[in-house]
Amino acid sequence: MNPQTDTLLIVGLGLIGGSYAQGLRAEGFRVIGLDRDSDTIAYALETGMIQAGSTDPGDPALIAEADGIICGLYPNAMVEWMLANQAYFRPGIFLTDVSGVKRAVLERVQSALRPDVELIGSHPMAGREVSGIWNSDPSIFRGANFIVTPTERNTEAGISFAEELGRRLGFGRISRLSPAEHDEMIGYLSQLTHAIAVSLMNANDHPHLVEYTGDSFRDLTRIAKINEELWSELFFANRDILISEIDRFSAALGEIRQNLSDGDEEGLKERFRLSTARRRMFDTNS
Amino acid sequence: MNPQTDTLLIVGLGLIGGSYAQGLRAEGFRVIGLDRDSDTIAYALETGMIQAGSTDPGDPALIAEADGIICGLYPNAMVEWMLANQAYFRPGIFLTDVSGVKRAVLERVQSALRPDVELIGSHPMAGREVSGIWNSDPSIFRGANFIVTPTERNTEAGISFAEELGRRLGFGRISRLSPAEHDEMIGYLSQLTHAIAVSLMNANDHPHLVEYTGDSFRDLTRIAKINEELWSELFFANRDILISEIDRFSAALGEIRQNLSDGDEEGLKERFRLSTARRRMFDTNS
Repeated sequence: MNPQTDTLLIVGLGLIGGSYAQGLRAEGFRVIGLDRDSDTIAYALETGMIQAGSTDPGDPALIAEADGIICGLYPNAMVEWMLANQAYFRPGIFLTDVSGVKRAVLERVQSALRPDVELIGSHPMAGREVSGIWNSDPSIFRGANFIVTPTERNTEAGISFAEELGRRLGFGRISRLSPAEHDEMIGYLSQLTHAIAVSLMNANDHPHLVEYTGDSFRDLTRIAKINEELWSELFFANRDILISEIDRFSAALGEIRQNLSDGDEEGLKERFRLSTARRRMFDTNS
Repeated sequence: MNPQTDTLLIVGLGLIGGSYAQGLRAEGFRVIGLDRDSDTIAYALETGMIQAGSTDPGDPALIAEADGIICGLYPNAMVEWMLANQAYFRPGIFLTDVSGVKRAVLERVQSALRPDVELIGSHPMAGREVSGIWNSDPSIFRGANFIVTPTERNTEAGISFAEELGRRLGFGRISRLSPAEHDEMIGYLSQLTHAIAVSLMNANDHPHLVEYTGDSFRDLTRIAKINEELWSELFFANRDILISEIDRFSAALGEIRQNLSDGDEEGLKERFRLSTARRRMFDTNS
């Protein structure tokens, strides 16, 4: 990657795509963009986030200018865009994505992609509660995790391309996981927690309870405000793992219920001691 | 209550009792204290949090000096202390507690208490992750909820005593709930959330996951660091309600699992829309 000579194309200029555009512009790259929404393209051009853009997501001329492509679309749209437009890619380029699930999307693209170009999966673990290019801000990447998910179809040069992107965008920790390891980690740490927050919010319809909510309830349910289109895609793309994480969690909660109905105080205390010890580990490692 | 003339006794000078002592001293009351721990009593005297104290929790002379009593002990210890020492109370005084559960403790004391004195339940909804008088700080009460739980055995004068304590300590919102309403609210907003956090922490033993935890997982599990003695008491004192809250939550989570296994994307999105709308209500009311 050479900021003096390389043009990077960002497909989908939402919160994440727009933040990539700003971060890569600041690094000196020529950045171009595609987005169906004309207000988004106009805003990206006016603010200098991109130097050229089009509202035609399959604009052949613009796609052919790219020395590297970052696809900021939702998982299924990402797969469709790459397969539909691969004829226009410059020979030998690297592509990456921003999807929060990896097994499903990578295999679908990599098995059908031109052999002279390469998709390297990456997942920038950053976001905001708001969406759209108007809320984009590359400082959300600072200190966050950036995960590259190589497969047997990737080369070391391709993997380095993705890792360098993460470094240039200011991520705090850049690591490699297999797509399966990534999806297991995200199924537990992110998807299960969102499923829990949604269920906690939906389990009780007491508007007057608002008056009594403390910090812990607010903390647990903050992520119950959820973009239903994106998150239903993410859940379904990882559903085997998510279902098994839900089952594992439900079993743990069921054990607390069992201790309560059995009157087993010592068993309950033992669970509290275990969770306390495990959670402490997170504090000392943060 | 008259700060010029009244002596208030605090039984149990831990985090909450110590914070009460400081806050009530600042209001001008003479404050005295009982605690089994000699270091605690010495510290409370040295720092001026109390003007007199004893390590004998049944010290007759000290108890008889009190114009009002606040019991800062754990729920079961609170019940035992009040019943064991009621012979020493001055005639006509008001007593209150700080317990996080109400039905069990109030009934046990109120049904056996001398008829000339009165226990009014109250729950200061504030705390810290650390314990002991050394961490006490009355500023934890600022803006927090203070709930008074009157029963048919209470007089308006007694209820006003408890409410005035909350006001003088700087709580943000002082409200009245019946013991049953209190226990339902706390079963959902506090106990269920703690049961969830503990279960989430216990469901997966992957130490290497620490590297990838984002803010949402940390937020959900912060309360998994839990004092096992206090919380097992709280859970068991409210177990009928807590079990039904666990069941209600488990049903809601089970519905997400069902949507996933059925491939019902529209059903899943509907749950996300509901949780988003409900959580927004919390933001606008905070």
